[in-house]
Amino acid sequence: MRILILGGDGYLGWPTAMHFAARGHEVCVIDNYLRRLIAQQTQSEALMPTPDLPERAAIFKAVTGLDIKVKIGDVTNYRTLERVFMDFAPEAAVHYAEQPSAPYSMIGYDEATLTLNNNLNATLNLIFAVMEHAPECQIIKLGTMGEYGTPNIDIEEGWIEIEHNGRKDKFLYPRAAGSLYHTTKVMDTDLLWFYVRTYGLRVSDLMQGPVYGLSTAESDQDERLLPNFHYDDIFGTVVNRFLVQAVAGVPLTVYGKGGQVRGYLNLRDTMQCVELAATKPAGRGELRILNQLTETFSVNQLADNVKRVGDQMGLNVKIEAIDNPRKEKEEHYYNPTHTGLLDLGLQPTYMSDEVLSAMISQVIKHKDLIDTKMILPRVRWK
Amino acid sequence: MRILILGGDGYLGWPTAMHFAARGHEVCVIDNYLRRLIAQQTQSEALMPTPDLPERAAIFKAVTGLDIKVKIGDVTNYRTLERVFMDFAPEAAVHYAEQPSAPYSMIGYDEATLTLNNNLNATLNLIFAVMEHAPECQIIKLGTMGEYGTPNIDIEEGWIEIEHNGRKDKFLYPRAAGSLYHTTKVMDTDLLWFYVRTYGLRVSDLMQGPVYGLSTAESDQDERLLPNFHYDDIFGTVVNRFLVQAVAGVPLTVYGKGGQVRGYLNLRDTMQCVELAATKPAGRGELRILNQLTETFSVNQLADNVKRVGDQMGLNVKIEAIDNPRKEKEEHYYNPTHTGLLDLGLQPTYMSDEVLSAMISQVIKHKDLIDTKMILPRVRWK
Repeated sequence: MRILILGGDGYLGWPTAMHFAARGHEVCVIDNYLRRLIAQQTQSEALMPTPDLPERAAIFKAVTGLDIKVKIGDVTNYRTLERVFMDFAPEAAVHYAEQPSAPYSMIGYDEATLTLNNNLNATLNLIFAVMEHAPECQIIKLGTMGEYGTPNIDIEEGWIEIEHNGRKDKFLYPRAAGSLYHTTKVMDTDLLWFYVRTYGLRVSDLMQGPVYGLSTAESDQDERLLPNFHYDDIFGTVVNRFLVQAVAGVPLTVYGKGGQVRGYLNLRDTMQCVELAATKPAGRGELRILNQLTETFSVNQLADNVKRVGDQMGLNVKIEAIDNPRKEKEEHYYNPTHTGLLDLGLQPTYMSDEVLSAMISQVIKHKDLIDTKMILPRVRWK
Repeated sequence: MRILILGGDGYLGWPTAMHFAARGHEVCVIDNYLRRLIAQQTQSEALMPTPDLPERAAIFKAVTGLDIKVKIGDVTNYRTLERVFMDFAPEAAVHYAEQPSAPYSMIGYDEATLTLNNNLNATLNLIFAVMEHAPECQIIKLGTMGEYGTPNIDIEEGWIEIEHNGRKDKFLYPRAAGSLYHTTKVMDTDLLWFYVRTYGLRVSDLMQGPVYGLSTAESDQDERLLPNFHYDDIFGTVVNRFLVQAVAGVPLTVYGKGGQVRGYLNLRDTMQCVELAATKPAGRGELRILNQLTETFSVNQLADNVKRVGDQMGLNVKIEAIDNPRKEKEEHYYNPTHTGLLDLGLQPTYMSDEVLSAMISQVIKHKDLIDTKMILPRVRWK
């Protein structure tokens, strides 16, 4: 299958590219290094330096003998994306080309407008590139569980039947996101759903929980193939941040009461999920929404787990509750359905002590690179 | 009260400006003539030529002695909007500054991207201008009943309580719009709702049905103060289009089966509703959604009413069903709640035979200006 990966330089994009290439697919990645630029601008660089995309592809080729095509360009420029579609003729397009940081989107006007315009124009351009140049190409768009927020009812997989005054209809599950970034993902879904039902596109919208980990079958073959592992307050997801804090000997920073529950996912499972979505595609005119998580934890549970495993490894891990920089419920109901991907064949990698311990060992190798200045929250939205 | 009107040159914007000025408010309008430009580009110009904004303000001043401040500028440029906020310090901002044509938004990529970027950046800029320069200023944003689409359950005013698996929560009423334009309005609401609940803005979101009419207390004082009355397939709402067709002696073009039911509103009632929203403002942190319509009709009922009144006036009106250029249900359930504005004090102007007859008489005065080439649908989205 010819698979185009938008945002192929990212934490998920690059491992996804290698994953598909290793399984015999023809892969092309496009990225404009926006995340690298923002990470520099906000002093939020990844733990290990990562080679640029042509170098990554060359190393991957040297290690595996496999090709990954690289295009450096901005998918919010329609002409750029259109040319990639005409040259590569993708059968599936995996859309990661979004400004992915919630805190960044909340810094101020410039960051808000960049996030809104980048994310929605990337999505609109992808829709039109498919409609005009590859109508059978399926779109696999990474959404986020954050679109749903923390409702007081069970979270379904994208759709809900509502009975009201004795009549029924089926709707997109209502959404109320916790940051502008997450709100742009809600809007992405609005946009895709309109074009899906009007023009019969094939779309899988994967509502992903926070991802953790830095190991995949491919990246484990050479240190230089590791994903860009962020541990700062801007780009770092909570588990990755805790792992680095444990290794650095600074307290794990729990925001507020720590009762915030989310659905989590190992990086290796993201690879599986995206592959399942691609190889078992949505039908024409179908917006298939799948909740992409394997287990739920509160922030306190995560901190306790990292502490327990860290302590066993001799790290003497401390936990410190700090004032929550975000506006969110710190104690709430949370019960998301997530059977769709299991039904497609997902084999979950749970966050066992062994998994945590392997990640901590990986971080320990790079301990000297940790900059503890970038761990405490620098953006508040209250 | 100091009232800023974004999109103050429009079909609703200009009558709203005069309405508030006539009631003793201090009014500033800003507009970049985007609608005039698009109307020229698509050969969809209004029935009567309308003077530009400084001329309109000068005529209004000559007729009434009242001032309306005029600023020509693009609110998607934040610096422009920010300066108006700093100079004028509005207490209420009425947001009409959007590309308002559903068919235009469906022509192709260029029109889609213009609609998406214009509408969302105007809204985001307004949000930030309020947050940074006038935190007590209330936002009155014109939404559309089209955000809801045509669900098989009763349409509530913006919010719905959902009971699911024995638990309850309250959500934004689910929305599924019928064009990209209408989808951008859904996204506007998403964006406003995020900033309202995060930063405590005061917002009234008026979900308006199609508006008809060309008479208000102020515009009736001088022909040159008339709103820009569009009757074409791009900017003309269905009632206005039927009135012109009746006068021009061409058949009223019913799209498809004509069972499409919508909620309608007289132009004079839009003035009342916006005034009620401004003088009885939403509280801090409140997104008050009001369904702005006074009665519902199917397209067939509208055509029959225009025919009956037109025939009484000797026009010999014909009705012709044509292939529906839109993708929409032609027979469906439709029961929107609309008590919020009545509770605030709205005195509805219903579409009586007298009202229809007065509108037809107005159009007859301008009969020579009708260009029948622009009446049949030129944009299809199927």
